[in-house]
This record gives sequence, structure tokens and C-alpha cells, in this order.
Amino acid sequence: MTDSFHTKAPSAMRILGIPGSLRAGSYNRALLRAAIDLAPEGMEVEIFEGLEEVPPFNQDVEEKGVPQPVSHLKQAMASADALLIATPEYNYSIPGVLKNALDWASRPPDSPLSGKPVGLVGASGGGSGTMRSQLALRQVFVFTGCLVLPKPEVYVTRAPEKFTDGRLADERTREHLARFLESLGAWVGRLSS
Amino acid sequence: MTDSFHTKAPSAMRILGIPGSLRAGSYNRALLRAAIDLAPEGMEVEIFEGLEEVPPFNQDVEEKGVPQPVSHLKQAMASADALLIATPEYNYSIPGVLKNALDWASRPPDSPLSGKPVGLVGASGGGSGTMRSQLALRQVFVFTGCLVLPKPEVYVTRAPEKFTDGRLADERTREHLARFLESLGAWVGRLSS
Amino acid sequence: MTDSFHTKAPSAMRILGIPGSLRAGSYNRALLRAAIDLAPEGMEVEIFEGLEEVPPFNQDVEEKGVPQPVSHLKQAMASADALLIATPEYNYSIPGVLKNALDWASRPPDSPLSGKPVGLVGASGGGSGTMRSQLALRQVFVFTGCLVLPKPEVYVTRAPEKFTDGRLADERTREHLARFLESLGAWVGRLSS
Amino acid sequence: MTDSFHTKAPSAMRILGIPGSLRAGSYNRALLRAAIDLAPEGMEVEIFEGLEEVPPFNQDVEEKGVPQPVSHLKQAMASADALLIATPEYNYSIPGVLKNALDWASRPPDSPLSGKPVGLVGASGGGSGTMRSQLALRQVFVFTGCLVLPKPEVYVTRAPEKFTDGRLADERTREHLARFLESLGAWVGRLSS
Repeated sequence: MTDSFHTKAPSAMRILGIPGSLRAGSYNRALLRAAIDLAPEGMEVEIFEGLEEVPPFNQDVEEKGVPQPVSHLKQAMASADALLIATPEYNYSIPGVLKNALDWASRPPDSPLSGKPVGLVGASGGGSGTMRSQLALRQVFVFTGCLVLPKPEVYVTRAPEKFTDGRLADERTREHLARFLESLGAWVGRLSS
Repeated sequence: MTDSFHTKAPSAMRILGIPGSLRAGSYNRALLRAAIDLAPEGMEVEIFEGLEEVPPFNQDVEEKGVPQPVSHLKQAMASADALLIATPEYNYSIPGVLKNALDWASRPPDSPLSGKPVGLVGASGGGSGTMRSQLALRQVFVFTGCLVLPKPEVYVTRAPEKFTDGRLADERTREHLARFLESLGAWVGRLSS
Repeated sequence: MTDSFHTKAPSAMRILGIPGSLRAGSYNRALLRAAIDLAPEGMEVEIFEGLEEVPPFNQDVEEKGVPQPVSHLKQAMASADALLIATPEYNYSIPGVLKNALDWASRPPDSPLSGKPVGLVGASGGGSGTMRSQLALRQVFVFTGCLVLPKPEVYVTRAPEKFTDGRLADERTREHLARFLESLGAWVGRLSS
Repeated sequence: MTDSFHTKAPSAMRILGIPGSLRAGSYNRALLRAAIDLAPEGMEVEIFEGLEEVPPFNQDVEEKGVPQPVSHLKQAMASADALLIATPEYNYSIPGVLKNALDWASRPPDSPLSGKPVGLVGASGGGSGTMRSQLALRQVFVFTGCLVLPKPEVYVTRAPEKFTDGRLADERTREHLARFLESLGAWVGRLSS
């Protein structure tokens, strides 16, 4: 399920990274790999790999039994202390693939989204840095009852200049992401106390 | 591809109805069936039936060749004079399934969405009538360059009271939908003159 | 400044209610008065009364000195443990009057909004219950760094049926508002621990 | 009322420019001045100058009589063929001052916004170019029944590099704005035919 799993202390805070793009060379997937590296002491980030298998949401299908890839997603979310969504922006909004996964995950009676802390990041090729997609996601997370970190925000613009061979190379962006992860960790701690 | 196709005059205005839900008993699908009945003289509405086959958008897949169900969708859109989207609201936004189809459709170089007139309607079980989903869709259609009818709007609330055996039975809603279709026809005419 | 100030324990949690409408008979103002009554033990709600005096935001004016009504607003916000915004919906969004006050309040270097817990409620004459206005406000509060209670939400629909002589009379709405205030109190406590 | 009024042909298309900021040195006001210069043959752009006098919207005030600055605004809008809004972004949304003016203008029974063509442009100091503010305005213009030009969009980023002494100096931005005005003119023509 994970393409990386840092085995740290048993009590480490576990963050489930969910990429919003299925593309192998996705900048947002690369951003999550950078988050694995940059996670502060006591936090481990893993990447959910099964997004591609999540079928199109259909209540008729659901009534016959929740598909295994969806159960897998919900379990991975439920066992994480927080979600880290790394999303591109498609057509000024959330990628349908990501929204579909959230539609499945949000279904009662066992939505792992309810009350879950969430951090949002995003990278785009152009200058917007996924601003609109992240705002659209925040609206979704109101309904699902997630607790989204308000600040800082991570909008990686002009991604081709900042990633090299699938690695986040830009030092300022790495520092900003590291600070974001510190804030996300503090947010999770604050909410769980 | 269509579950209904009224063969009228050869010059009839053709509206492609796209349901946002895959559920067989979907109120939004039923709303499109009502639109087939209520279409004014000179307009024919057909329902796109292949949404379920549209795969999750993945640029890697696209580069190997656009999947057949996507080509099918794009051709159906391209040959229509306007689109009529009937959408539920999932988690305060667009169903992922519908957004995914729009993500595929919007891809260059042959997006059928560019400059296409669009009408939005929606039905929900509760009191919101898909307000938030329709506004979220309007944001998407800015990017895609669609020409969305601003008014009137169709928000069908408390759908279980208004549909009987998959048929829109509520008379006031039928009248409102008929007026909406008149306005959509006028909008298409105005934009094409 | 306040049209009510319950003097409770010195350590009471202080909530500043801000109505989004200037109308004397505003349902949203009435909703804040109901919140004064329904506040749980240990919470006191007061209503900010100076919104009318806040001038149109103008950076040229600000540079000559922050107007007194703005300082008044910022001080009232700063000294509160949380804000309770009761907003109508104008044109599918935030009333300009309310947004203008937030524009002033958000100005550096001493924005009282940064990190401030916020609760949102709203009442409308029709069926929407200010859904769109509240979502638009949540977007604003991302930038300002407020910590908005995600759930429960309070959307008071068909206000004329629920208020009598400026008093929230509908018992179910009163109970829902009381629960909301409990949740807001718990949210403030959770964030300050 | 206008700081410029090009007297062209009597049948010229008249565009009312409305700046969203009251600041004298506003980039958005400067953008409207550039639009005056760059308007194509047959279009004249004038700038509405009375925004500062529009009082805070209050239905109690309205019932005693619409204030003169509001009547002035509504008349200016009514006599224009289209509106050109040049807006900054405050707190991820519409400036309260601009929203307040639209709240007044939208009031029945004589809203000049109903069916009015609208173009949106915006300039910001940073990299967002008022993306979020323009999208928030589009939502408002759904309710008011305006016909907003979908494309092209004008997002002027890093304004301090592009304006010199209150004049839009950047050549690429001037060309883009000129094309936008051509498109706006074509949009007005298309809708009025």
C-alpha cells in the first residue's frame, strides 16, 4: 500500500499522503515523496497507492457491498492521525479522481473523514499553484467534518523549475514544506489534546 | 448511447443530457427523462448513457490513446448544440464521477466544451437542491469556456416527494423545468445568431 | 458597544457576536440575541453594535490613521475568545457591509483574526439558510487564519416562520443553536488547551 | 462622474468601468484607465467615480428612500451596454466596498444588473492576479442575472512591475487587455443581436 514507510517510534504520528493525480510522474506525488523526507521527528508519512483501483462511486454498487479498494482506502484513512492531500488543479477545481475517492470515503456509517485532521498542499505547472483546487477541497471538507489546517498554505507554482527527476529540488520550497509539516504536526497535537 | 431520441425536424436543436449520478434510480436521471418529455417544439433531449465506462483520468493513459468511452463522450458533446447537466451534490460539491468525465472531455486539442452552451439542473433529497454543486460546476465551466445559462436556475428540493416511480410527478416542478428548457433554447439561439 | 452583557464568572468564555446585517429587525441580529440566552454555563455572548460606523475600507484613509470605529471593532475582536458571525446572504455571497468590516479587521500588523476561533450561523427568509454566504465566509477566514468550527452548521431557513417579534421562537431551532454553542465552546477549549 | 469620456460615434458601445478599490493609486483603477486607451473602435469606456459615496447597505435606510449616490450608480449602470469590473482581491474574496455597491445595485424592482453583460479584470501585487476574487464575483453575478464574459480572463500579477506612475506600461499586458476588450465588445454584440 505504501511506497515508503519510515519505521520510527511506535508512537509516531502517522500521516497518510493522498495524491490527487494518477500520473506516475505527477508533481503532487513527488511532493508527497518530499514530505516523507522532510517529516519532522516523530512523524511518518506514507503514500496511499490504491487510488487507481477505486471504482466510480455508485450507490447501487455500494448496496451490494463496499468494493475492496474502497475498504482499503477507508482503513488506511482511519488508521492515520491525519491526511495530507497533494492535489493538482483540473479545470479550476478538484480532480474527479480525487473527488470520487472522497465521495466513497465519506459514506456512512463509518466515514474516516469525520473529525480527521487534514493538510492540503498542491503543485501546478503554471502560476496558480492549485489555489482554486485547494479552496474547492476545503468546501468538501466542511461537509465531511474534517479539521483542515488553515495556515500555512503550500502552493507550489512553476513545478517544472522546482522538481528534478521526480525530486523536489528547490530549496525554498523544501523549507516551506518542512515548516508546513511542523505546523500540521502541531495542529494534530493541538486537536488531540 | 441514448435511452430516448425524439426524431423531430432535421434542424431540431439537440441537447445532450448528462446525469451526474450512476445510480439507476437517480432523481437526476429522472429529471433528464422529464426534460425529454418537456422539451419545447424544435428541441430534442437525449441522455448520455456511457458515463459509467469513462475510466479514471490519467495522463499516462491518455498519452497511449484516448479510451473509447471518452471519445464517445467527446463526440456526443461535440455533436450537441448544448449540454444539460443534471447533477446531485456530493459533499457540498460536484460528484467525482461527473467531474472525472469533464476532466477527460476538457482535454486539448479537441475539447467539445469550449464555447458550448450549458444548462444546469439538479435534484436532492433534502432542502438544498444541489445549490453548492451547481455553483462548483459553474466554476469548472469558466475554465472550460462553456457558456452557462445564468437564469433561471432549477433546484429540485425534497426529491422523494416530487418523483413517483422514477417520474417527475410534481406539477410545479414540471412547469419550472419546461420554462427552463425554453430559456435554454433561447440562450442557444441567442448565442448562435 | 453591547446590547447585552451577561456578567458571569470572571473566567467566562467571551464570544463576540457580529451581525452581518444593519437592519434593526434583522433575523440574524435576533439569532445573536437568542445566542445570548442560550449560551451554556461559562460562556457569555455580546453583540458588536458599531458595524454601521465602520467606513468603507480605503488604504489611503488607513495610512492617515485607523478610524476610531475600526479600532473599536479590532479591540472588541481581540478581547473575545471567539467570534460568532450571524450573516444573511446577499447575492449568493457575504453582505458587503460585513466583508468591509472584515477587510478592515484583517489589516496588519495587528489583525485580531489571526488564529481566532470562529462560529458561523445564518438565517434567511427562504430555503437556503445562507449556505452560500457561509461557504463564502469560510473562504475569507482561510486567508485571515481563523479557526472556523467545521460542524455543526446552523442554517435557519424560512425565518419568518421561526421568529416572533424579534425573538427566535422555534423550539427545534433553539435547541440546535444551543447545541451549536456547546460545540463552539468545546472548540475554543480544544484549541486553547 | 467620469474621469474620462471619449466622445466617439453616437452609437458607440458604452462600457462602465467600476474599480473595486477606493485607493487613489489603485492598480485596478489604473487598469480601467488603460482600458479607456485600449478600447477598440466603436467602444468607449468611462470610470464610475462615485463608489466612495455609496453608504453601507441597510434595508431600513432603503425603505426611507434610495440614497442619491446609489441612484447615481444604478443610472450609470443602466445606461451602459456593459460593466467592466476591475477588482483587487481582499482576503481571498471581493472587496467589501465593491460588494456593498453591488448589493445596493441589485435591489429590486429596478436592478440594472439583470441581463447586463459584464467583463471582469483584476490586478494584484502578488502572483494570484485576483483569481479568487474574480471567481467569487462570478458567483454573485449568477444571482444578479448578469452575463459574464467567460473568456479570456485578465489576471494581472506582480502589478508593481507592470505599472509606472499609474500607467499600465507592460506591453504584453496591454495587448492582452486590448484583446479582452475586443472579446467583451463581441460578447455584447452577440448577446444583443
